[in-house]
Amino acid sequence: MSDENTLIFYDIPSKMGAWSPNTWKTRYTLNFKGIPFKTVWVEYPDIEKTLKDLGIAASATILDGKTPHYTLPAIYDPVTKTGLNASFAIAKYLDEKYPDKPTLAPRGTEALQKAYIDAIRGKLDALLQFMFPKAAWSLNERSEEYFRRARKQKYGKTMEEMYPQGEKRKEEWKRLEEGLGQIDKWYGKEDILVMGGKEKVCFADFAIAGFMISTRILFGKESEEWKDVSGWQRGRWGRMVQALAKYE
Amino acid sequence: MSDENTLIFYDIPSKMGAWSPNTWKTRYTLNFKGIPFKTVWVEYPDIEKTLKDLGIAASATILDGKTPHYTLPAIYDPVTKTGLNASFAIAKYLDEKYPDKPTLAPRGTEALQKAYIDAIRGKLDALLQFMFPKAAWSLNERSEEYFRRARKQKYGKTMEEMYPQGEKRKEEWKRLEEGLGQIDKWYGKEDILVMGGKEKVCFADFAIAGFMISTRILFGKESEEWKDVSGWQRGRWGRMVQALAKYE
Repeated sequence: MSDENTLIFYDIPSKMGAWSPNTWKTRYTLNFKGIPFKTVWVEYPDIEKTLKDLGIAASATILDGKTPHYTLPAIYDPVTKTGLNASFAIAKYLDEKYPDKPTLAPRGTEALQKAYIDAIRGKLDALLQFMFPKAAWSLNERSEEYFRRARKQKYGKTMEEMYPQGEKRKEEWKRLEEGLGQIDKWYGKEDILVMGGKEKVCFADFAIAGFMISTRILFGKESEEWKDVSGWQRGRWGRMVQALAKYE
Repeated sequence: MSDENTLIFYDIPSKMGAWSPNTWKTRYTLNFKGIPFKTVWVEYPDIEKTLKDLGIAASATILDGKTPHYTLPAIYDPVTKTGLNASFAIAKYLDEKYPDKPTLAPRGTEALQKAYIDAIRGKLDALLQFMFPKAAWSLNERSEEYFRRARKQKYGKTMEEMYPQGEKRKEEWKRLEEGLGQIDKWYGKEDILVMGGKEKVCFADFAIAGFMISTRILFGKESEEWKDVSGWQRGRWGRMVQALAKYE
Protein backbone atom coordinates (compact mmCIF):
# COMPACT_ATOMS: atom_id res chain seq x y z
CA MET A 1 0.00 0.00 0.00
CA SER A 2 1.61 3.17 -1.18
CA ASP A 3 0.28 6.57 -2.13
CA GLU A 4 1.69 10.07 -2.50
CA ASN A 5 1.71 10.47 1.29
CA THR A 6 3.78 7.35 1.93
CA LEU A 7 7.09 7.98 3.65
CA ILE A 8 10.11 7.29 1.46
CA PHE A 9 13.14 5.45 2.81
CA TYR A 10 16.41 5.75 0.88
CA ASP A 11 18.57 2.63 1.14
CA ILE A 12 21.64 1.27 -0.67
CA PRO A 13 21.05 -1.82 -2.83
CA SER A 14 23.30 -4.84 -3.24
CA LYS A 15 23.11 -8.28 -4.79
CA MET A 16 21.89 -9.46 -1.38
CA GLY A 17 19.29 -6.72 -0.90
CA ALA A 18 19.54 -4.37 2.10
CA TRP A 19 22.93 -4.94 3.70
CA SER A 20 24.21 -1.67 5.25
CA PRO A 21 24.49 -1.59 9.06
CA ASN A 22 23.54 2.08 9.00
CA THR A 23 20.47 1.89 6.79
CA TRP A 24 19.35 -1.21 8.68
CA LYS A 25 19.02 0.96 11.80
CA THR A 26 16.37 2.98 9.98
CA ARG A 27 14.68 -0.04 8.40
CA TYR A 28 14.34 -1.50 11.90
CA THR A 29 13.13 1.88 13.16
CA LEU A 30 10.39 2.21 10.55
CA ASN A 31 9.18 -1.35 11.06
CA PHE A 32 9.25 -0.94 14.83
CA LYS A 33 7.14 2.21 14.54
CA GLY A 34 4.80 0.43 12.15
CA ILE A 35 5.02 3.30 9.67
CA PRO A 36 4.23 2.35 6.07
CA PHE A 37 7.13 3.26 3.79
CA LYS A 38 8.42 2.78 0.29
CA THR A 39 12.11 1.93 -0.26
CA VAL A 40 13.96 3.89 -2.91
CA TRP A 41 17.26 2.19 -3.77
CA VAL A 42 20.13 4.58 -4.37
CA GLU A 43 23.49 3.48 -5.76
CA TYR A 44 26.53 5.11 -4.10
CA PRO A 45 27.37 7.56 -6.92
CA ASP A 46 23.82 8.93 -6.70
CA ILE A 47 23.62 9.53 -2.93
CA GLU A 48 24.94 13.09 -3.00
CA LYS A 49 22.54 14.29 -5.70
CA THR A 50 19.60 12.47 -4.09
CA LEU A 51 20.18 14.17 -0.75
CA LYS A 52 20.79 17.59 -2.31
CA ASP A 53 17.54 17.28 -4.26
CA LEU A 54 15.75 16.57 -0.98
CA GLY A 55 17.39 19.62 0.61
CA ILE A 56 19.34 17.46 3.07
CA ALA A 57 22.72 18.83 4.14
CA ALA A 58 25.65 16.46 4.58
CA SER A 59 25.67 15.19 8.15
CA ALA A 60 29.44 14.73 8.27
CA THR A 61 32.68 15.54 6.47
CA ILE A 62 35.33 13.20 5.09
CA LEU A 63 38.69 12.89 6.87
CA ASP A 64 39.91 16.32 5.70
CA GLY A 65 37.27 17.82 8.00
CA LYS A 66 35.88 19.99 5.19
CA THR A 67 34.53 18.04 2.22
CA PRO A 68 30.88 17.19 2.94
CA HIS A 69 30.11 13.48 3.23
CA TYR A 70 26.63 12.52 2.05
CA THR A 71 25.32 9.36 3.63
CA LEU A 72 22.29 7.14 3.83
CA PRO A 73 19.94 6.29 5.47
CA ALA A 74 17.64 9.18 4.66
CA ILE A 75 13.88 9.57 4.65
CA TYR A 76 11.47 11.94 3.00
CA ASP A 77 8.15 12.57 4.67
CA PRO A 78 5.76 13.94 2.04
CA VAL A 79 3.20 14.98 4.66
CA THR A 80 5.51 17.46 6.37
CA LYS A 81 7.73 17.88 3.27
CA THR A 82 10.69 17.00 5.49
CA GLY A 83 13.82 15.24 4.29
CA LEU A 84 16.45 14.18 6.77
CA ASN A 85 19.29 11.74 7.20
CA ALA A 86 21.37 10.15 9.98
CA SER A 87 19.67 7.22 11.68
CA PHE A 88 19.40 8.66 15.21
CA ALA A 89 18.00 11.96 13.90
CA ILE A 90 15.42 10.00 11.90
CA ALA A 91 14.40 7.98 14.96
CA LYS A 92 14.03 11.20 16.99
CA TYR A 93 11.93 12.80 14.24
CA LEU A 94 9.62 9.79 14.17
CA ASP A 95 9.41 9.75 17.99
CA GLU A 96 8.15 13.33 17.86
CA LYS A 97 5.95 12.95 14.81
CA TYR A 98 4.23 9.78 16.07
CA PRO A 99 3.95 10.27 19.84
CA ASP A 100 1.35 7.47 20.06
CA LYS A 101 3.92 4.88 18.88
CA PRO A 102 6.50 3.44 21.30
CA THR A 103 9.50 5.75 21.56
CA LEU A 104 13.06 4.82 20.62
CA ALA A 105 14.74 7.59 22.63
CA PRO A 106 12.79 7.59 25.91
CA ARG A 107 13.13 10.72 28.00
CA GLY A 108 16.52 10.92 29.67
CA THR A 109 18.22 8.26 27.53
CA GLU A 110 19.31 10.21 24.46
CA ALA A 111 22.84 11.19 25.55
CA LEU A 112 23.37 7.75 27.09
CA GLN A 113 22.32 6.06 23.85
CA LYS A 114 24.67 8.27 21.88
CA ALA A 115 27.48 7.30 24.25
CA TYR A 116 26.57 3.63 23.75
CA ILE A 117 26.66 4.01 19.97
CA ASP A 118 30.02 5.76 20.17
CA ALA A 119 31.38 3.10 22.52
CA ILE A 120 30.29 0.09 20.42
CA ARG A 121 31.82 1.61 17.29
CA GLY A 122 35.19 1.45 19.05
CA LYS A 123 34.66 -2.12 20.23
CA LEU A 124 33.60 -3.25 16.74
CA ASP A 125 36.66 -1.70 15.17
CA ALA A 126 37.97 -5.11 14.07
CA LEU A 127 34.75 -5.85 12.18
CA LEU A 128 35.13 -3.16 9.51
CA GLN A 129 38.09 -4.76 7.74
CA PHE A 130 35.90 -7.82 7.22
CA MET A 131 32.70 -5.95 6.48
CA PHE A 132 33.96 -3.39 3.95
CA PRO A 133 35.43 -5.96 1.54
CA LYS A 134 32.42 -8.25 1.92
CA ALA A 135 30.22 -5.25 1.13
CA ALA A 136 32.32 -4.24 -1.89
CA TRP A 137 32.04 -7.77 -3.30
CA SER A 138 28.26 -7.69 -2.83
CA LEU A 139 27.46 -4.29 -4.34
CA ASN A 140 26.15 -3.64 -7.81
CA GLU A 141 28.79 -2.58 -10.30
CA ARG A 142 28.35 1.22 -10.16
CA SER A 143 28.33 1.23 -6.39
CA GLU A 144 31.22 -1.19 -6.13
CA GLU A 145 33.50 1.02 -8.21
CA TYR A 146 32.58 4.09 -6.13
CA PHE A 147 32.85 2.26 -2.80
CA ARG A 148 36.26 0.83 -3.65
CA ARG A 149 37.61 4.22 -4.70
CA ALA A 150 36.32 6.02 -1.57
CA ARG A 151 37.67 3.34 0.79
CA LYS A 152 41.02 3.21 -1.00
CA GLN A 153 41.29 6.98 -0.57
CA LYS A 154 40.43 6.78 3.13
CA TYR A 155 42.41 3.68 4.17
CA GLY A 156 45.10 3.53 1.49
CA LYS A 157 44.30 -0.13 0.79
CA THR A 158 42.33 -2.08 -1.76
CA MET A 159 39.52 -4.22 -0.42
CA GLU A 160 41.59 -7.32 -1.15
CA GLU A 161 44.52 -5.90 0.85
CA MET A 162 42.24 -4.94 3.72
CA TYR A 163 40.57 -8.34 4.12
CA PRO A 164 42.56 -10.24 6.77
CA GLN A 165 44.06 -13.58 5.75
CA GLY A 166 45.71 -16.52 7.52
CA GLU A 167 47.10 -15.79 11.00
CA LYS A 168 46.06 -12.15 10.76
CA ARG A 169 42.50 -13.28 10.14
CA LYS A 170 42.50 -15.43 13.27
CA GLU A 171 43.92 -12.62 15.37
CA GLU A 172 41.49 -10.00 14.11
CA TRP A 173 38.53 -12.33 14.45
CA LYS A 174 39.64 -12.97 18.05
CA ARG A 175 39.87 -9.21 18.57
CA LEU A 176 36.28 -8.86 17.37
CA GLU A 177 35.18 -11.54 19.82
CA GLU A 178 36.94 -9.69 22.62
CA GLY A 179 35.36 -6.38 21.60
CA LEU A 180 31.92 -7.94 21.71
CA GLY A 181 32.88 -9.49 25.03
CA GLN A 182 33.43 -6.02 26.45
CA ILE A 183 29.99 -4.91 25.28
CA ASP A 184 28.49 -8.10 26.73
CA LYS A 185 29.81 -7.15 30.18
CA TRP A 186 27.59 -4.07 30.27
CA TYR A 187 24.46 -6.20 29.98
CA GLY A 188 22.70 -8.09 32.73
CA LYS A 189 23.22 -11.83 32.24
CA GLU A 190 19.56 -12.46 31.44
CA ASP A 191 18.97 -9.30 29.43
CA ILE A 192 18.74 -9.40 25.67
CA LEU A 193 18.20 -5.71 25.00
CA VAL A 194 20.23 -2.81 26.33
CA MET A 195 17.43 -1.45 28.54
CA GLY A 196 16.92 -4.90 30.03
CA GLY A 197 14.65 -7.85 29.22
CA LYS A 198 13.75 -8.50 25.60
CA GLU A 199 10.68 -6.34 25.03
CA LYS A 200 11.72 -2.74 25.74
CA VAL A 201 13.50 -1.74 22.54
CA CYS A 202 15.45 1.50 22.18
CA PHE A 203 17.42 2.93 19.28
CA ALA A 204 20.74 1.68 20.66
CA ASP A 205 19.51 -1.90 20.19
CA PHE A 206 19.03 -1.23 16.50
CA ALA A 207 22.47 0.39 16.34
CA ILE A 208 24.20 -2.82 17.38
CA ALA A 209 21.68 -5.09 15.65
CA GLY A 210 22.48 -3.23 12.40
CA PHE A 211 26.06 -4.51 12.60
CA MET A 212 24.83 -8.00 13.42
CA ILE A 213 22.32 -8.31 10.64
CA SER A 214 24.81 -6.85 8.19
CA THR A 215 27.28 -9.58 9.23
CA ARG A 216 24.60 -12.23 8.78
CA ILE A 217 23.65 -10.93 5.33
CA LEU A 218 27.15 -10.31 3.98
CA PHE A 219 28.62 -13.61 5.17
CA GLY A 220 25.44 -15.62 4.84
CA LYS A 221 23.13 -17.20 7.41
CA GLU A 222 24.91 -20.56 7.19
CA SER A 223 28.47 -19.20 7.25
CA GLU A 224 31.06 -20.07 9.89
CA GLU A 225 31.39 -16.35 10.55
CA TRP A 226 27.76 -15.82 11.45
CA LYS A 227 27.79 -19.03 13.46
CA ASP A 228 30.70 -17.57 15.44
CA VAL A 229 29.29 -14.11 16.01
CA SER A 230 25.76 -15.26 16.82
CA GLY A 231 27.15 -17.84 19.24
CA TRP A 232 29.68 -15.74 21.11
CA GLN A 233 28.95 -14.59 24.67
CA ARG A 234 26.53 -17.45 25.29
CA GLY A 235 24.64 -16.71 22.12
CA ARG A 236 23.86 -13.14 23.16
CA TRP A 237 23.98 -11.62 19.66
CA GLY A 238 22.07 -14.39 17.95
CA ARG A 239 19.35 -14.13 20.57
CA MET A 240 19.27 -10.34 20.22
CA VAL A 241 18.82 -10.49 16.43
CA GLN A 242 16.14 -13.12 17.03
CA ALA A 243 14.29 -10.89 19.48
CA LEU A 244 14.29 -8.07 16.92
CA ALA A 245 13.45 -10.28 13.93
CA LYS A 246 9.85 -9.04 13.87
CA TYR A 247 11.19 -5.58 12.92
CA GLU A 248 13.25 -6.78 9.96
CA MET B 1 27.59 11.64 64.12
CA SER B 2 29.12 8.22 63.98
CA ASP B 3 28.44 4.98 65.76
CA GLU B 4 29.22 1.32 65.22
CA ASN B 5 26.50 1.12 62.54
CA THR B 6 27.89 3.97 60.46
CA LEU B 7 28.89 3.01 56.95
CA ILE B 8 32.64 3.20 56.31
CA PHE B 9 34.03 4.69 53.13
CA TYR B 10 37.63 3.89 52.20
CA ASP B 11 39.35 6.71 50.34
CA ILE B 12 42.94 7.57 49.37
CA PRO B 13 44.46 10.57 51.14
CA SER B 14 46.69 13.28 49.69
CA LYS B 15 48.11 16.62 50.74
CA MET B 16 44.99 18.13 49.12
CA GLY B 17 42.49 15.75 50.75
CA ALA B 18 40.25 13.57 48.60
CA TRP B 19 41.55 13.77 45.04
CA SER B 20 40.94 10.45 43.22
CA PRO B 21 38.43 10.56 40.34
CA ASN B 22 37.34 7.04 41.24
CA THR B 23 36.79 7.50 44.95
CA TRP B 24 35.06 10.81 44.25
CA LYS B 25 32.36 8.87 42.39
CA THR B 26 31.54 7.12 45.65
CA ARG B 27 31.87 10.24 47.81
CA TYR B 28 29.35 11.92 45.48
CA THR B 29 27.17 8.80 45.63
CA LEU B 30 27.06 8.69 49.43
CA ASN B 31 26.32 12.39 49.74
CA PHE B 32 23.65 12.17 47.04
CA LYS B 33 21.99 9.32 48.90
CA GLY B 34 22.28 11.24 52.14
CA ILE B 35 23.81 8.25 53.89
CA PRO B 36 25.92 9.10 56.95
CA PHE B 37 29.43 7.70 56.56
CA LYS B 38 32.85 7.81 58.09
CA THR B 39 35.92 8.15 55.84
CA VAL B 40 38.85 5.83 56.52
CA TRP B 41 41.96 7.05 54.70
CA VAL B 42 44.08 4.28 53.23
CA GLU B 43 47.54 4.87 51.79
CA TYR B 44 48.29 2.94 48.55
CA PRO B 45 50.55 0.27 50.08
CA ASP B 46 47.74 -0.61 52.51
CA ILE B 47 44.86 -0.98 50.02
CA GLU B 48 45.38 -4.68 49.33
CA LYS B 49 45.46 -5.68 53.00
CA THR B 50 42.50 -3.43 53.82
CA LEU B 51 40.33 -5.03 51.15
CA LYS B 52 41.43 -8.57 52.01
CA ASP B 53 40.58 -7.94 55.67
CA LEU B 54 37.11 -6.85 54.56
CA GLY B 55 36.74 -9.99 52.45
CA ILE B 56 36.63 -7.99 49.23
CA ALA B 57 38.07 -9.69 46.15
CA ALA B 58 40.11 -7.70 43.64
CA SER B 59 37.76 -6.28 41.03
CA ALA B 60 40.38 -6.29 38.28
CA THR B 61 43.80 -7.60 37.30
CA ILE B 62 46.91 -5.71 36.30
CA LEU B 63 48.06 -5.74 32.65
CA ASP B 64 49.32 -9.35 32.82
CA GLY B 65 45.66 -10.37 33.12
CA LYS B 66 46.38 -12.50 36.21
CA THR B 67 47.76 -10.54 39.16
CA PRO B 68 44.82 -9.18 41.18
CA HIS B 69 44.55 -5.40 41.29
CA TYR B 70 43.08 -4.08 44.52
CA THR B 71 41.44 -0.69 44.17
CA LEU B 72 39.48 1.90 46.06
CA PRO B 73 36.79 3.14 46.50
CA ALA B 74 35.39 0.53 48.86
CA ILE B 75 32.73 0.61 51.52
CA TYR B 76 31.89 -1.49 54.53
CA ASP B 77 28.31 -1.62 55.72
CA PRO B 78 28.36 -2.79 59.35
CA VAL B 79 24.57 -3.36 59.35
CA THR B 80 24.68 -6.03 56.64
CA LYS B 81 28.34 -6.88 57.31
CA THR B 82 28.96 -6.28 53.59
CA GLY B 83 32.21 -5.01 52.17
CA LEU B 84 32.43 -4.16 48.48
CA ASN B 85 34.41 -2.08 46.04
CA ALA B 86 34.09 -0.63 42.51
CA SER B 87 32.08 2.58 42.37
CA PHE B 88 29.23 1.37 40.14
CA ALA B 89 28.74 -1.78 42.23
CA ILE B 90 28.63 0.40 45.36
CA ALA B 91 26.00 2.68 43.80
CA LYS B 92 23.91 -0.35 42.80
CA TYR B 93 24.18 -1.81 46.31
CA LEU B 94 23.00 1.46 47.83
CA ASP B 95 20.16 1.73 45.27
CA GLU B 96 18.93 -1.67 46.45
CA LYS B 97 19.59 -1.17 50.13
CA TYR B 98 17.91 2.26 50.29
CA PRO B 99 14.98 2.01 47.86
CA ASP B 100 13.39 5.14 49.37
CA LYS B 101 16.34 7.29 48.24
CA PRO B 102 16.61 8.52 44.63
CA THR B 103 18.22 5.86 42.48
CA LEU B 104 21.49 6.28 40.57
CA ALA B 105 20.89 3.43 38.14
CA PRO B 106 17.21 3.86 37.18
CA ARG B 107 15.55 0.81 35.63
CA GLY B 108 16.72 0.30 32.06
CA THR B 109 19.76 2.58 32.24
CA GLU B 110 22.43 0.35 33.74
CA ALA B 111 23.98 -1.02 30.53
CA LEU B 112 23.72 2.41 28.89
CA GLN B 113 25.48 4.04 31.83
CA LYS B 114 28.24 1.42 31.68
CA ALA B 115 28.65 2.17 27.97
CA TYR B 116 28.85 5.90 28.78
CA ILE B 117 31.52 5.30 31.40
CA ASP B 118 33.50 3.14 28.98
CA ALA B 119 33.14 5.74 26.21
CA ILE B 120 34.24 8.74 28.31
CA ARG B 121 37.32 6.88 29.51
CA GLY B 122 38.44 6.69 25.88
CA LYS B 123 37.71 10.36 25.25
CA LEU B 124 39.57 11.42 28.39
CA ASP B 125 42.60 9.40 27.43
CA ALA B 126 44.74 12.55 27.10
CA LEU B 127 43.93 13.60 30.66
CA LEU B 128 45.71 10.75 32.41
CA GLN B 129 49.23 11.86 31.49
CA PHE B 130 48.48 15.15 33.26
CA MET B 131 46.53 13.67 36.12
CA PHE B 132 48.86 10.83 37.16
CA PRO B 133 51.93 13.06 37.68
CA LYS B 134 49.85 15.73 39.44
CA ALA B 135 48.49 13.01 41.70
CA ALA B 136 51.96 11.57 42.41
CA TRP B 137 53.20 15.04 43.41
CA SER B 138 50.23 15.47 45.76
CA LEU B 139 50.30 12.12 47.55
CA ASN B 140 51.75 11.47 50.96
CA GLU B 141 55.22 9.95 50.92
CA ARG B 142 54.34 6.26 51.35
CA SER B 143 51.65 6.44 48.69
CA GLU B 144 53.79 8.47 46.33
CA GLU B 145 56.56 5.90 46.32
CA TYR B 146 54.07 3.08 45.65
CA PHE B 147 52.13 5.02 43.03
CA ARG B 148 55.30 5.96 41.12
CA ARG B 149 56.53 2.37 41.10
CA ALA B 150 53.20 0.94 39.89
CA ARG B 151 52.80 3.53 37.11
CA LYS B 152 56.43 3.13 36.03
CA GLN B 153 55.84 -0.60 35.74
CA LYS B 154 52.65 -0.10 33.73
CA TYR B 155 53.68 2.76 31.43
CA GLY B 156 57.46 2.43 31.39
CA LYS B 157 57.87 6.10 32.28
CA THR B 158 58.55 8.15 35.36
CA MET B 159 55.93 10.71 36.29
CA GLU B 160 58.29 13.47 35.16
CA GLU B 161 58.72 11.78 31.77
CA MET B 162 54.99 11.29 31.40
CA TYR B 163 53.98 14.89 32.12
CA PRO B 164 53.74 16.66 28.73
CA GLN B 165 55.94 19.72 28.22
CA GLY B 166 56.22 22.51 25.63
CA GLU B 167 54.63 21.80 22.24
CA LYS B 168 53.60 18.31 23.35
CA ARG B 169 51.72 19.85 26.24
CA LYS B 170 49.78 22.14 23.90
CA GLU B 171 48.91 19.28 21.57
CA GLU B 172 47.79 16.94 24.32
CA TRP B 173 45.77 19.67 26.04
CA LYS B 174 44.10 20.34 22.69
CA ARG B 175 43.41 16.62 22.34
CA LEU B 176 41.72 16.67 25.75
CA GLU B 177 39.56 19.59 24.66
CA GLU B 178 38.57 17.67 21.53
CA GLY B 179 37.77 14.54 23.55
CA LEU B 180 35.49 16.55 25.82
CA GLY B 181 34.02 18.16 22.70
CA GLN B 182 32.96 14.71 21.50
CA ILE B 183 31.24 13.99 24.81
CA ASP B 184 29.58 17.42 24.69
CA LYS B 185 27.94 16.49 21.36
CA TRP B 186 25.94 13.73 23.03
CA TYR B 187 24.23 16.22 25.33
CA GLY B 188 21.31 18.47 24.52
CA LYS B 189 22.49 22.09 24.29
CA GLU B 190 20.60 23.14 27.41
CA ASP B 191 21.19 19.98 29.42
CA ILE B 192 23.70 19.90 32.24
CA LEU B 193 23.32 16.28 33.28
CA VAL B 194 23.43 13.22 31.08
CA MET B 195 19.76 12.35 31.56
CA GLY B 196 18.78 15.91 30.69
CA GLY B 197 18.15 19.09 32.68
CA LYS B 198 20.16 19.67 35.84
CA GLU B 199 18.16 17.86 38.52
CA LYS B 200 17.91 14.20 37.49
CA VAL B 201 21.29 12.82 38.57
CA CYS B 202 22.47 9.34 37.61
CA PHE B 203 25.71 7.52 38.35
CA ALA B 204 27.20 8.40 34.95
CA ASP B 205 27.15 12.08 35.97
CA PHE B 206 29.33 11.28 38.95
CA ALA B 207 31.63 9.24 36.72
CA ILE B 208 32.52 12.24 34.59
CA ALA B 209 32.29 14.71 37.46
CA GLY B 210 34.88 12.62 39.30
CA PHE B 211 37.39 13.43 36.57
CA MET B 212 36.41 17.08 36.67
CA ILE B 213 36.67 17.56 40.39
CA SER B 214 39.95 15.67 40.44
CA THR B 215 41.28 18.10 37.82
CA ARG B 216 40.07 21.05 39.88
CA ILE B 217 41.68 19.71 43.04
CA LEU B 218 45.00 18.56 41.58
CA PHE B 219 45.60 21.72 39.52
CA GLY B 220 43.86 24.10 41.90
CA LYS B 221 40.66 26.09 41.61
CA GLU B 222 42.48 29.18 40.34
CA SER B 223 44.74 27.37 37.85
CA GLU B 224 44.79 28.05 34.11
CA GLU B 225 44.09 24.36 33.62
CA TRP B 226 40.85 24.35 35.58
CA LYS B 227 39.86 27.64 33.96
CA ASP B 228 40.30 25.91 30.57
CA VAL B 229 38.48 22.70 31.37
CA SER B 230 35.59 24.34 33.21
CA GLY B 231 35.18 26.85 30.39
CA TRP B 232 35.36 24.52 27.39
CA GLN B 233 32.19 23.69 25.45
CA ARG B 234 30.43 26.87 26.55
CA GLY B 235 31.26 26.19 30.18
CA ARG B 236 29.52 22.81 30.19
CA TRP B 237 31.89 21.11 32.65
CA GLY B 238 32.12 24.01 35.06
CA ARG B 239 28.33 24.24 35.15
CA MET B 240 28.05 20.49 35.67
CA VAL B 241 30.42 20.49 38.65
CA GLN B 242 28.48 23.47 39.99
CA ALA B 243 25.17 21.62 39.66
CA LEU B 244 26.61 18.69 41.62
CA ALA B 245 28.42 20.84 44.22
CA LYS B 246 25.79 20.06 46.85
CA TYR B 247 26.97 16.42 46.78
CA GLU B 248 30.64 17.18 47.34
